Amino acid sequence: MDPRGERLAALERRIEVLEDEMEIRRLIASYGPAVDSNSREAAARMWTEEGLYDVDIGSWSGRAEISAMLADEFHQDCLVHGCAHLASVSVISLDGDSAVATGYLQLIVRSGDEFEIRRQTAQRWELVRTDEGWKIQKRIGRLIDGSREPRDMLESGLSS
Amino acid sequence: MDPRGERLAALERRIEVLEDEMEIRRLIASYGPAVDSNSREAAARMWTEEGLYDVDIGSWSGRAEISAMLADEFHQDCLVHGCAHLASVSVISLDGDSAVATGYLQLIVRSGDEFEIRRQTAQRWELVRTDEGWKIQKRIGRLIDGSREPRDMLESGLSS
Amino acid sequence: MDPRGERLAALERRIEVLEDEMEIRRLIASYGPAVDSNSREAAARMWTEEGLYDVDIGSWSGRAEISAMLADEFHQDCLVHGCAHLASVSVISLDGDSAVATGYLQLIVRSGDEFEIRRQTAQRWELVRTDEGWKIQKRIGRLIDGSREPRDMLESGLSS
Repeated sequence: MDPRGERLAALERRIEVLEDEMEIRRLIASYGPAVDSNSREAAARMWTEEGLYDVDIGSWSGRAEISAMLADEFHQDCLVHGCAHLASVSVISLDGDSAVATGYLQLIVRSGDEFEIRRQTAQRWELVRTDEGWKIQKRIGRLIDGSREPRDMLESGLSS
Repeated sequence: MDPRGERLAALERRIEVLEDEMEIRRLIASYGPAVDSNSREAAARMWTEEGLYDVDIGSWSGRAEISAMLADEFHQDCLVHGCAHLASVSVISLDGDSAVATGYLQLIVRSGDEFEIRRQTAQRWELVRTDEGWKIQKRIGRLIDGSREPRDMLESGLSS
Repeated sequence: MDPRGERLAALERRIEVLEDEMEIRRLIASYGPAVDSNSREAAARMWTEEGLYDVDIGSWSGRAEISAMLADEFHQDCLVHGCAHLASVSVISLDGDSAVATGYLQLIVRSGDEFEIRRQTAQRWELVRTDEGWKIQKRIGRLIDGSREPRDMLESGLSS
């Protein structure tokens, strides 16, 4: 290829990487708005059809299970009081059609005139490019309680 | 147009979208530093001249009203104690010269040796491109208290 | 240069700016995962060899001092209870091979069944491009306690 054609092709590859990262940031930022508005189907569609959500308080496999979990008492009780699931800025590592994002999620729940941090977790988002865009293949959430597992998740996000 | 000219033009359009999104992220990230440093004029200039700030505790129309609100007792009292207005990561939907960003704002206020979450709101930022860059045309903030309105705001941010 | 060559060169410059900003966002997002996983060397390598970390409760100069500070009782006690250092979205101002990012850091520590905001600080990250990528040359953190200094830091981030 001629030099100018190579520069053009290089730019196309670089902009694709930036667009991928932007789309992944958008996906992560949409989790809170989905679950805090009780949009259970929209939340479940953030995962692949068979995607896994593995949290310290339970594990749900596939969109139907994830949607059903959001209809359960724990989440519905949070919604009645008023809740905000705040995703942090994330460390995103892209590798072609897969990516890993590492960060935190803070669950704020209203309690009378106050807002409490009900849960503070470490988050690992394992993402894949699909025909419907970037989706979650596996997402792990662990309460930050001084134990080994959330620390290991955070550490692995640094090197991937 | 020849194929190479089309690729160049396509790249220019794609990079403009990314630059717009970056500028919008910067605008949102600057709200906290503006109000938490009592930079009332800088905060007001984030809006268009006639821009609206519509919150559950009040509504202010135009830069002069927004700046005056920041001089009122509620905000000045927060500043005396020490406050941080923390904008969340946002779902940004661009459409040419307008955009919508959806997320949260957490108001932290110092109370003695502790920091309290004084308010946790849902946020909808309706933005327009102007000669001065991206500005807020209308911004809505609603306390997350279990009611319908903040949920609807968050849900509408998913589909826009 | 011919018009098409100029457009190509302009695109290359614009994409470099976006890539720089993305790398800086990644650097800031990795601080929490580094310190909350007790990855003291990885955290210290976020700074230049002689980089400075200047906080209201102490000041550490160079990677060795920063790493040693993270081994001290204050941080290790936070880790035992479980802690999350949450960086906010930031206002990033790039200027060639240097940059300034302005935002906040929230230190969450578990206390029994609750999570407390132990510290809420304003943050100024002074960054430089090095052979190892973007690094922190100087980082300032000040508790938001109603005093002048954190306000001034936040205000200066708006105009830089």
